[in-house]
Amino acid sequence: MLKIAIDAMGGDFGPGPIIDGLIAALKMNNNFTAIAVGDKNKLEELIPSYYKNRIEILHTEDVISMSDSATDALKRKESTIYKAIDLVKEGSADAVVSAGHSGASMSLATLRIGRIKGVSRPAIATLMPTSENQNTLVLDVGANVDCDAKNLFEFAVMGQTYVRDVLQIDEPLVGLLSNGEEESKGNEVTKEAYKLISKIPNFAGNVEGSDIFKGTVDVVVCDGFIGNILLKTAEGVADTIGKIIKKNLKRSLISIAGAVLMRKVFKNLKVRVDYAEYGGAPLLGVKAPVIIAHGKSNPKAIQNAIFQAINSASSNLNHDIEEKLKHYSA
Amino acid sequence: MLKIAIDAMGGDFGPGPIIDGLIAALKMNNNFTAIAVGDKNKLEELIPSYYKNRIEILHTEDVISMSDSATDALKRKESTIYKAIDLVKEGSADAVVSAGHSGASMSLATLRIGRIKGVSRPAIATLMPTSENQNTLVLDVGANVDCDAKNLFEFAVMGQTYVRDVLQIDEPLVGLLSNGEEESKGNEVTKEAYKLISKIPNFAGNVEGSDIFKGTVDVVVCDGFIGNILLKTAEGVADTIGKIIKKNLKRSLISIAGAVLMRKVFKNLKVRVDYAEYGGAPLLGVKAPVIIAHGKSNPKAIQNAIFQAINSASSNLNHDIEEKLKHYSA
Repeated sequence: MLKIAIDAMGGDFGPGPIIDGLIAALKMNNNFTAIAVGDKNKLEELIPSYYKNRIEILHTEDVISMSDSATDALKRKESTIYKAIDLVKEGSADAVVSAGHSGASMSLATLRIGRIKGVSRPAIATLMPTSENQNTLVLDVGANVDCDAKNLFEFAVMGQTYVRDVLQIDEPLVGLLSNGEEESKGNEVTKEAYKLISKIPNFAGNVEGSDIFKGTVDVVVCDGFIGNILLKTAEGVADTIGKIIKKNLKRSLISIAGAVLMRKVFKNLKVRVDYAEYGGAPLLGVKAPVIIAHGKSNPKAIQNAIFQAINSASSNLNHDIEEKLKHYSA
Repeated sequence: MLKIAIDAMGGDFGPGPIIDGLIAALKMNNNFTAIAVGDKNKLEELIPSYYKNRIEILHTEDVISMSDSATDALKRKESTIYKAIDLVKEGSADAVVSAGHSGASMSLATLRIGRIKGVSRPAIATLMPTSENQNTLVLDVGANVDCDAKNLFEFAVMGQTYVRDVLQIDEPLVGLLSNGEEESKGNEVTKEAYKLISKIPNFAGNVEGSDIFKGTVDVVVCDGFIGNILLKTAEGVADTIGKIIKKNLKRSLISIAGAVLMRKVFKNLKVRVDYAEYGGAPLLGVKAPVIIAHGKSNPKAIQNAIFQAINSASSNLNHDIEEKLKHYSA
């Protein structure tokens, strides 16, 4: 039976939503148990006695806050995230979920659990919604701001393998994010990366920012600097459209009536773009599944992040990534 | 009286919308005349006799198509865009508007008209809508895919000067696009650029993708590779939200009723995000105003692009850019 380690204290809203999400996950899936890392006194009163036999508590009180630097995290050996990750390192857990300091989770996972053979840099991958009710996996979205062609090539292999092994999509298409579709487009690094990625099957070549949301490909590869800007830009546009609609609504009673009728539509829309539906972002390239959830995760987001961890842990993901990288570099 | 040169044939829809836009502009502003460059026979029948005294036609038939390469444009001396730009080079016109091949317009303008003293690379700037009914000027959005810190610094100076001199906003705030607001954020190039841009007044530091649409600053600086991806991503998100709303509408009669009532709201929304409202994108850093309009420009977009050209030509923009660059490099 799988065992999932979870940083129960790291989220912006404390242990409440994390334990609620964990319990929701345990309700729906009987084939795993969990180790919740955090303050025993606080956690015990949040866990209904019925679930106490499936949730082990590892007591520790230190929590890395969002304002702390990722480098400090390496010294804070008593922190919830440090201990949660070490549970995986020493084999007491199969995967870890953290809604805490993402930089800390990333560097601790990379340094304590270690990289898969052949991976020079792990990458954070995230799912973006498309108009076709599919999703597009985008990586890297923040782990590595300066990337060379080889890094981008590895992201392509890791992303394609994740979509196939964990999301179970056959022959996923991979695109390289660029400033145009033609092979001649790109900056120095992406032009170099294009040649390397051409070695892998189902490479669709260069794709543009709009392709992410059209669902043209299953995986979009970029460096972490652009990936972060891309995510924030997408959020910004969605917010702005929402605000402009609201503003205009205020101006007319008729459109308020309209909005009431449209509520269901907007609700569906929200579901399609709500990260809670996707859970967390997998850190690809480390030796065990690490799911980085949003600091503001609600119970549903945590529940889905835990299912992602379970799906990754029960797949051949990391073995396949190592094999593919070995194969292509040969 | 100002004289505006216009490539009358370069747009995706031929001379029709371009001449219509030119006439709309002449109607609203009596203080300029135009030189329309293109096929005399086609253009003459599009121009009402009443306007013939304010529209001079420079006859030529060669048109650079979107599929031609920008480098060919330099050899095609009889093309509409080549001749339109040379009218400015030789002083027969004060500014040029082109809805044709943007790469060709850019390289011809840079090589034939020449760069402002102190500018190492011209940049294309574009206005993005914000939820606050202001706009944010983003540059570079495509002219330069690989930029160093000095290029980004020059973009900051050119963008800030354009917003002050042409859009007449006092003390415009400039932000550097990065993967977080803290000074420590950024990739190698932007960290270096941060130090340089700190020399100019009203530098707001690093901004994120979402800030563009919040209107946090008046000018956002990035390289042309990221600028292009950012634009396409914004378009993609807006399209996707629209499609998801439409799809859901089909599912329910009630929400169709709602949509009818909401139509005015969506119309306002469209106006806010329609590039036709903004006209074209100025190419900053060349010795005369060059406005690059969208290939699919409708008459309104052309009209606004012509007004941009007039506003730039009647401002101290290029003189001020040269002075500022001289000042800061001293």
